[in-house]
Amino acid sequence: MTHEHDAASLADFRAFRERMNTEILDEGNLIINRFFALDTRTYEAGALDVKTKELLGLVASMVLRCDDCVTYHVVRCREEGVTRAEAFEAFSVALVVGGSIVIPHLRRAVARWGELDAAASSG
Amino acid sequence: MTHEHDAASLADFRAFRERMNTEILDEGNLIINRFFALDTRTYEAGALDVKTKELLGLVASMVLRCDDCVTYHVVRCREEGVTRAEAFEAFSVALVVGGSIVIPHLRRAVARWGELDAAASSG
Amino acid sequence: MTHEHDAASLADFRAFRERMNTEILDEGNLIINRFFALDTRTYEAGALDVKTKELLGLVASMVLRCDDCVTYHVVRCREEGVTRAEAFEAFSVALVVGGSIVIPHLRRAVARWGELDAAASSG
Amino acid sequence: MTHEHDAASLADFRAFRERMNTEILDEGNLIINRFFALDTRTYEAGALDVKTKELLGLVASMVLRCDDCVTYHVVRCREEGVTRAEAFEAFSVALVVGGSIVIPHLRRAVARWGELDAAASSG
Amino acid sequence: MTHEHDAASLADFRAFRERMNTEILDEGNLIINRFFALDTRTYEAGALDVKTKELLGLVASMVLRCDDCVTYHVVRCREEGVTRAEAFEAFSVALVVGGSIVIPHLRRAVARWGELDAAASSG
Amino acid sequence: MTHEHDAASLADFRAFRERMNTEILDEGNLIINRFFALDTRTYEAGALDVKTKELLGLVASMVLRCDDCVTYHVVRCREEGVTRAEAFEAFSVALVVGGSIVIPHLRRAVARWGELDAAASSG
Repeated sequence: MTHEHDAASLADFRAFRERMNTEILDEGNLIINRFFALDTRTYEAGALDVKTKELLGLVASMVLRCDDCVTYHVVRCREEGVTRAEAFEAFSVALVVGGSIVIPHLRRAVARWGELDAAASSG
Repeated sequence: MTHEHDAASLADFRAFRERMNTEILDEGNLIINRFFALDTRTYEAGALDVKTKELLGLVASMVLRCDDCVTYHVVRCREEGVTRAEAFEAFSVALVVGGSIVIPHLRRAVARWGELDAAASSG
Repeated sequence: MTHEHDAASLADFRAFRERMNTEILDEGNLIINRFFALDTRTYEAGALDVKTKELLGLVASMVLRCDDCVTYHVVRCREEGVTRAEAFEAFSVALVVGGSIVIPHLRRAVARWGELDAAASSG
Repeated sequence: MTHEHDAASLADFRAFRERMNTEILDEGNLIINRFFALDTRTYEAGALDVKTKELLGLVASMVLRCDDCVTYHVVRCREEGVTRAEAFEAFSVALVVGGSIVIPHLRRAVARWGELDAAASSG
Repeated sequence: MTHEHDAASLADFRAFRERMNTEILDEGNLIINRFFALDTRTYEAGALDVKTKELLGLVASMVLRCDDCVTYHVVRCREEGVTRAEAFEAFSVALVVGGSIVIPHLRRAVARWGELDAAASSG
Repeated sequence: MTHEHDAASLADFRAFRERMNTEILDEGNLIINRFFALDTRTYEAGALDVKTKELLGLVASMVLRCDDCVTYHVVRCREEGVTRAEAFEAFSVALVVGGSIVIPHLRRAVARWGELDAAASSG
């Protein structure tokens, strides 16, 4: 799929993310490294299942308007079986809570969903 | 239960909320009235159930640090059967996504939970 | 008028604001003092009239969810002849742009408007 | 005009916006579709004229630091006859209310204004 | 010192903070408990000294407009020997970066400083 | 060094910044021009030294998630002798205060640091 608007392609996003995460963790700052470990564990199954927690992460990322975070959780939500209709309902909560300033991020989230559909069907 | 810290009691919060909502809707501003109607419908069952949508509203409110919104969704989550353990997992997502500035709102959310427990056991 | 919800009365707000502004300016920090002077000049008439600029300040304060800033601009808007209907239209823009998290601040802004009406009719 | 810094050209922005709005509305999520309709109606003439409401939308977008929203309202403000001097006064309110973190968005807003001037004179 | 504006007294703030921190940690949510432990360690001496890190925490709290966080770091900064002039310079950075919406929080921070001075001289 | 992810190269950032700052100041809006002058003076030595103030600006920019502001302060911090270990400690404060939504900005800040290292060693 072609490069969307002013966002990097998913492949570029992933490569940059991997490379920089490695560089950050290699620095050995205790606080940062523990935070990264904690971040990963946050979405593990507990009283709530992983799918619900990923939806929570998705909506939190969208109302805080962090495109990279939204991309990450869109990918994870799909892996956990979130359907397009479920994702749009989560987006609708983010839109009403966060207002029209969420719309540009909603557009990019839906574009990512399409990019992932295209990758899945060509894969 | 006694009045918590610098937050109004739940009864005061509800009375103020009801009175002002009425005054706002009575003004007859079309946009505001439609927004209020839309806000209510956002949390109705659809592809996602009401409980999940209330959890989404709770986490969105907490990362955006809106105490009144958190109070509203804490009340609604309990009505939908969210357990204390489930609420704390939702809080943990909000805390990790939103950082330590979420902590004062977490304290007030947990205080509200206790205030509701006290009201339930005395009711 | 009685003290609203968890907000200070307008008289208390004004007294605290005046006292702290004096204490802050008396400290003599050059940057802070210049910022305060600049802030005052921002709303003076220029290419846009004062009323329009106060409406801009009101909406900016509401989407950023600063109750004290909203109170200040509500007072100033009234002094510049903004009507209740005009204020509600400004609020409607803030609500749609900023989302449902703006609602608690909208309630307090409308309560302030009523508090000022009561003071005007008793004055 | 050449592509500015890390922002898409106005033509790319518009094409992406149109395409994604269509895809979003075609999904048929009731809440999202009603929100989009409400968003459009928010800026219609009422107690305040359209020009004033677009200036409110512009300043709200700038203090919330949403470049796409700023671009949209810059285009609409020009259509409503907002002059460059008026736009800069609106920007000055956003800058003082929102602080120096608004500056990168101010730069991009002014670049958009120039891009629209260039398009107007070449059109 | 008398209760300031709409903020709780420092004694009330501390009592509520202690009580709720205990209740939160006693819940035993792994993520939340690790986050609290990490938060404490963040301000320990390393490449930067404790005083500098507390000033960083103070400015971060002020631009994010979290009064409880500001109160916490004001107390800690004083314990680390930050002078009133140094605190005002840190406030000036927060004010310029974050804009006039920081002013209400600046007023409350300066009121806290005075409350702590009064407690120190009466202690 | 190659162009990082979806950020402009440092040379492009600087050229755009310089060009737009000139265009903005040439407009002659009194408020904006005074704000720009005040912004520059904010980081001058006083009760706190320049290095500390730049670290404050860096952390404030990171928790407010402004990449251009972070880039500016990363450059200035290096000029003031901030080491990589000191910068990572400042980043750790921003990460814990601001939460996981800071991570994408942390990645870009560390990439900028590397870009500046590469420029320094090739210069």
